[in-house]
Amino acid sequence: MAWAQREGYDGYALSFDYGQRHRIELEAARRIAAALGAKEHLILRLDLRKIGGSALTDDLAVPKGRSEAEIGTGIPVTYVPARNTIFLAYALAFAEVRETEHIVIGVNELDSSGYPDCRPEYIRAFEQLANLATKAGVEGKSRFRVHTPLIRLSKADIVRRAVELGVDLSLTWSCYEPTAEGWACGVCDACLLRLKGFKEAGVADPIKYVR
Amino acid sequence: MAWAQREGYDGYALSFDYGQRHRIELEAARRIAAALGAKEHLILRLDLRKIGGSALTDDLAVPKGRSEAEIGTGIPVTYVPARNTIFLAYALAFAEVRETEHIVIGVNELDSSGYPDCRPEYIRAFEQLANLATKAGVEGKSRFRVHTPLIRLSKADIVRRAVELGVDLSLTWSCYEPTAEGWACGVCDACLLRLKGFKEAGVADPIKYVR
Repeated sequence: MAWAQREGYDGYALSFDYGQRHRIELEAARRIAAALGAKEHLILRLDLRKIGGSALTDDLAVPKGRSEAEIGTGIPVTYVPARNTIFLAYALAFAEVRETEHIVIGVNELDSSGYPDCRPEYIRAFEQLANLATKAGVEGKSRFRVHTPLIRLSKADIVRRAVELGVDLSLTWSCYEPTAEGWACGVCDACLLRLKGFKEAGVADPIKYVR
Repeated sequence: MAWAQREGYDGYALSFDYGQRHRIELEAARRIAAALGAKEHLILRLDLRKIGGSALTDDLAVPKGRSEAEIGTGIPVTYVPARNTIFLAYALAFAEVRETEHIVIGVNELDSSGYPDCRPEYIRAFEQLANLATKAGVEGKSRFRVHTPLIRLSKADIVRRAVELGVDLSLTWSCYEPTAEGWACGVCDACLLRLKGFKEAGVADPIKYVR
């Protein structure tokens, strides 16, 4: 959102309460949307637990303490089936009704965990779909674009970019399995990649970790 | 579903409670899934009213008593932004978790009201997306197909096909604006197209109409 505002867009935020273990990220999203002055912040409830199939929504164990090589290999159990397609489908509806053709999503290909729906070719396919799927697209009013300002950045570059844009990183959240007190676990894939990114960027990570 | 079962597939039904005025269609879906012996029938709640932009979810008037020429012109106010993209995204998640590559959707291009997300080119774009979006697609385990057995049929042909397949048409529903007693209005676009289809097929429509 900070990137989009810097580019001159108004910020309309969309978050999803999909039964994720780390619902605490929705509190982070609320704080960030408020801090950045979003025009609107819509939080939608999705029934993904009824579908299942992921460690982020089911009672499967979230991997911990994996090495970088392990994190980089294969698609992990934290993959949520078709999740970004569901997110982008709602974003498309939201964009069409609010009369914009610009959608921004913070997916990250490099330094990530091999999720298929975080790759540029996936995003391009969604753009094609968007223009065939909608009234605005078919009538030629909109040429939908899905912007992915973080997609090719390393986690270190993302930290640097956030600092450049003046984002308060203490408001952000990454951990898949927070403690009851709202501290990050420090050992899930998301924590490990985040910690490595801050370290490489030479920036202190302002959030609280158990270890 | 009757078509898919005739083709040899098991039937897993997926319906959406998205704040449509005609929620009565969900009761019809339940009766039909039970009558056909679906292995599972999942009904998901979607928050589309929060997004708005359609006569089917908002307090906009549903058009009534339009001529065939009027129905055939332009995209009507009953268009729900990105609705089928949202439906298919959930269906893709459901299919991936239930380990099938076959999705069936009852969209209809001809004799319909010009909805962009009921056209073959839209469906092909979704198939392309599906294979890029998912673990099963990327790992080559699945080659997702979206089957549209009704897409090119006229409403009359759909009625004939249903009779052939032994579907109990008294269980079905089309009306956008049912009365409190659960009767069809007889004058919205969906009723007018349905009535014309039954008439052309020479089959009596077994549901109750106000007029």
